[in-house]
Amino acid sequence: MLDAGRVAHVAVVDEDGQPFVVPVAFARDGDQVIFHGSRASRLFKRLAAGAPTCLTVTHLDGLVLARSAFESSMNYRSVMVLGIAHELTGDAEVAAFERVTEHLLPGRWADVRPPSEQERKATMFLALSLDECSVKIRTGPPEDLDIDLADPVYRNTWAGVVPMHQVFDAPIAADDSTELPVPDYIQHWT
Amino acid sequence: MLDAGRVAHVAVVDEDGQPFVVPVAFARDGDQVIFHGSRASRLFKRLAAGAPTCLTVTHLDGLVLARSAFESSMNYRSVMVLGIAHELTGDAEVAAFERVTEHLLPGRWADVRPPSEQERKATMFLALSLDECSVKIRTGPPEDLDIDLADPVYRNTWAGVVPMHQVFDAPIAADDSTELPVPDYIQHWT
Repeated sequence: MLDAGRVAHVAVVDEDGQPFVVPVAFARDGDQVIFHGSRASRLFKRLAAGAPTCLTVTHLDGLVLARSAFESSMNYRSVMVLGIAHELTGDAEVAAFERVTEHLLPGRWADVRPPSEQERKATMFLALSLDECSVKIRTGPPEDLDIDLADPVYRNTWAGVVPMHQVFDAPIAADDSTELPVPDYIQHWT
Repeated sequence: MLDAGRVAHVAVVDEDGQPFVVPVAFARDGDQVIFHGSRASRLFKRLAAGAPTCLTVTHLDGLVLARSAFESSMNYRSVMVLGIAHELTGDAEVAAFERVTEHLLPGRWADVRPPSEQERKATMFLALSLDECSVKIRTGPPEDLDIDLADPVYRNTWAGVVPMHQVFDAPIAADDSTELPVPDYIQHWT
């Protein structure tokens, strides 16, 4: 579920108890998730200082059409990771840079310039253990009540699932790349 | 941005300061967002009791391939709503049921059995004002540094965007609906 995700939603609570939910790029690395943000961010500073957090990744898999409003739903997979994140430094930080890049853009790392000292200083990578996590999944057809299935009107109402998934569209070259071939690894994603 | 979303991520902070990020179905209704969950949920009870919250909706629009790891990114649109939610009751609760159903499943409300008294008791609808919200958007091509564009290797590396979007697949009828026609409004989504 984590490996299939690209965006996670991370919570940070400020000094006044106000929570914020921030979208981040992330990757799983063994038994932890790593994610990054700006080192200048007030919220990321709080996380690095040990504020408890929650990182959630959700996949929407389809719309579930039941015969009642109450049983109508969505199929989804969601994982919630709880704990205290810690900042990655030194070699672990560079490894995390590679790991997140390769998770989002498989095959790309070998083609890009690695982060400079200045770029590393601007970026904060955090790791959060998977020790405490929970999963919620809804899958399959609607579960209509017997009373609705016996109803002369509602039993003639179509029920089922409309699946959804995310797709890649054709790559759009930057103005400076229109003459360059699209790398094989990108063709492979799409 | 809200009207194009189906799943929001909502934060709740428990008594010990531990935040949770929960995926919810939602809809915009005028100048507020409404969302629902189980009335039995400990976290929803806290929201109804006035705990500050944050609701975030994020759309992933594409992968951004720059010539450096640092400038590689994602195109996205995200809106974060802050405040204190309040519970909807009576007619407002039924209206919210319809509003969220129609947002997720346009055209469906007229075909489904409305919620019973018991189903309404099991469900909590909350409304959160849009008074305090912020938006983050990244769009367009990568922004490579001049030094990378002048580099003999990296200037020959393809850079650009691989757009992404979510699609519907063909509807899957429930076992009891295989003989029934798929309603026009569903054909229209897909």
